[in-house]
Amino acid sequence: MHAKASLKGTAVVGQSGGPTAVINQSLVGVVEALRGQPGVDKILGAHHAVKGIVNDDFIEMQNIPQDRLERIAQTPSSALGSSRDKPDESYCKRIFEVFEKNNVRYFFYIGGNDSSDTCRIVNELAKTAGYELRAFHVPKTIDNDLVHNDHTPGFASAAKFVAHAFIGDNLDNRALPGIKINIIMGRHAGFLTAASILARQHADDGPHLVYVPEAAFDMDRFVRDVEEVYKKNGRCLIAVSEGIHDAKGTPIATLLAQQVEKDAHGNVQLSGTGALGDFLSTAIKKHLGPKTRVRADTFGYLQRCFAGCTSSVDAEEARQVGREAARAALSGNLDGSISIRRVNNDPYRVEYKLIGLGDVAAKTRVMDAKYILGGRDIDSSFLDYLRPLVGKLPVVESLRSH
Amino acid sequence: MHAKASLKGTAVVGQSGGPTAVINQSLVGVVEALRGQPGVDKILGAHHAVKGIVNDDFIEMQNIPQDRLERIAQTPSSALGSSRDKPDESYCKRIFEVFEKNNVRYFFYIGGNDSSDTCRIVNELAKTAGYELRAFHVPKTIDNDLVHNDHTPGFASAAKFVAHAFIGDNLDNRALPGIKINIIMGRHAGFLTAASILARQHADDGPHLVYVPEAAFDMDRFVRDVEEVYKKNGRCLIAVSEGIHDAKGTPIATLLAQQVEKDAHGNVQLSGTGALGDFLSTAIKKHLGPKTRVRADTFGYLQRCFAGCTSSVDAEEARQVGREAARAALSGNLDGSISIRRVNNDPYRVEYKLIGLGDVAAKTRVMDAKYILGGRDIDSSFLDYLRPLVGKLPVVESLRSH
Repeated sequence: MHAKASLKGTAVVGQSGGPTAVINQSLVGVVEALRGQPGVDKILGAHHAVKGIVNDDFIEMQNIPQDRLERIAQTPSSALGSSRDKPDESYCKRIFEVFEKNNVRYFFYIGGNDSSDTCRIVNELAKTAGYELRAFHVPKTIDNDLVHNDHTPGFASAAKFVAHAFIGDNLDNRALPGIKINIIMGRHAGFLTAASILARQHADDGPHLVYVPEAAFDMDRFVRDVEEVYKKNGRCLIAVSEGIHDAKGTPIATLLAQQVEKDAHGNVQLSGTGALGDFLSTAIKKHLGPKTRVRADTFGYLQRCFAGCTSSVDAEEARQVGREAARAALSGNLDGSISIRRVNNDPYRVEYKLIGLGDVAAKTRVMDAKYILGGRDIDSSFLDYLRPLVGKLPVVESLRSH
Repeated sequence: MHAKASLKGTAVVGQSGGPTAVINQSLVGVVEALRGQPGVDKILGAHHAVKGIVNDDFIEMQNIPQDRLERIAQTPSSALGSSRDKPDESYCKRIFEVFEKNNVRYFFYIGGNDSSDTCRIVNELAKTAGYELRAFHVPKTIDNDLVHNDHTPGFASAAKFVAHAFIGDNLDNRALPGIKINIIMGRHAGFLTAASILARQHADDGPHLVYVPEAAFDMDRFVRDVEEVYKKNGRCLIAVSEGIHDAKGTPIATLLAQQVEKDAHGNVQLSGTGALGDFLSTAIKKHLGPKTRVRADTFGYLQRCFAGCTSSVDAEEARQVGREAARAALSGNLDGSISIRRVNNDPYRVEYKLIGLGDVAAKTRVMDAKYILGGRDIDSSFLDYLRPLVGKLPVVESLRSH
């Protein structure tokens, strides 16, 4: 995957899929590593990802002053705009027309596993067409589900939000005891939901039950789990992944949806509705009686772009994966994806490794089974993995231990 | 309301109603102003508010070291635990038995308008029984709806959370355009929902529509408002109070609830469910077609106790209202409520004024009509009121103005 001759042309960078609190760090990392390089004439930001490319809708980025770039890097969500379009053959043909017209020779696509697959398809078509393109995927996803990565940019900041939310909500639930369900993003992987255990500081702190998509979800067992904890503690705080599914693999959310909405990738809508939380609340009230205080919150979109709750490790790494992709392209590599490997945990240190687009595209990493306890809790050893990523959290004080 | 002879006895302090991010500041303010005073033998924290009093369940607080008190002050939610019980005659009789048994002569009740009413009832019964009690209400509510107050402790921190959430969500909605509804706490008053306009930094920033309980909500007008903004901007971010109601005063949330849950105060459950957001989503999809991207998030309990998003002005004032109540009691006043008045806006300065319990109990303040534009927006002059309370917010940078 290494080309000998140096290439001269335009670079295109795009941001795809769901935004994160640090995805603009990666954008800025790509731009600052590319600009001023002899092989790069222009740096074009694709407005709304592949949609911007096919519509020839670009934002010139090579002349943006560094201080403004820095402010963009610190701004949550995708400054270029995003898209959930999945390019097919004809879509990609249009992409090439635009690439040829603009002499685009470098392509950087920041996104998750759907986005890395988009990048792979564009790259394959470029190869078939005999068009020399250096195509790189830059990792991003709060789901933390890219294979060959220790973790992914965006995850740690979302995990930090979840931790802050659970620290407060655990104290809220202690003050006004009852059963509280919090629904957290995560279609196939439970990493973000599992991050809720960062809130445990005292012996009786919640979450007391944690359900992730890696374990089959059984409604009867769920209500019995809740009953057990509630009778023992007088309260029960529960973290639930939006993607929980039954033993057959059918998401619980689809069991209750009258009209299931799907995106272009065939994914069922899980976020942006309180239906799953309300469904679980109703099941608990049916089991424990209508007078039981049961509440459900769905963290929804707040968890991915909340302003002012960014992990500094996450911000730094998101910047670095952008730079690494640009450097790999400039040094003659033809394609690939930047991955993050943890070299050491204490002190925390990572390295960045170039892997093939095919290694990461459209594959999903899930949590190691060793972290999942009886399908209803997360082992505290997961905290060793999490803490260096999320950083310092507020320490709370209690008047009583119970 | 002034007693001449000095009193010697035990002080009881309780925290009632929904917790906030700064309610422990008020608790610590009361404790630190009382302890060491000759009239005060002991300071007892009522475990779970009036419930703790009738169960003789107290936590001794006079000997807690100052550094631990400081950590408690900085911890969100009610460290003593809370309750939503509304004491009736027989409940209050039990309260007096416990007060007499413990020689309780000072009573501080931190809470909102339901709680100030509880305080008033207890105080009236003490008077009827000829029991000398100094009963003080210490204001707290994220709803910001206490009369005779410029604002209330807890509101500014919740408003800061709402602002941070909307800053991120506005950028999220810009990156992946569609219609997004955010449901915010507020049964009768729209102050917290209106705080969403703090997120507006650039010309096209949302929220683009804001609905508060102060204006009657009409579903047909709502969907037409959304259509108008969506067609003009290609996206629409909407802030909605959970307490919106129709022209007859019936909350929209109750129109859709099959089984309406009420608390001891007769309040209908509004929070802890995504039903209202989902109901509004469905109405918009019905009007604009099922393919329209409509999402709804309900901020729920996150907004009142989120760790690490506290307004420093709020924390300081919450501490001070506790101290002021204790000082008023020690200086011989028999009863009252501490209110916050804004003396100057720039530089921001407040004063604390003792008012009667009857002046504030069970009354609700709502937003001034001058702030509410056509029942669907909030005037930017409301920002002059808000900004000194909430403090500095993250500044975001945009690549394009649109």
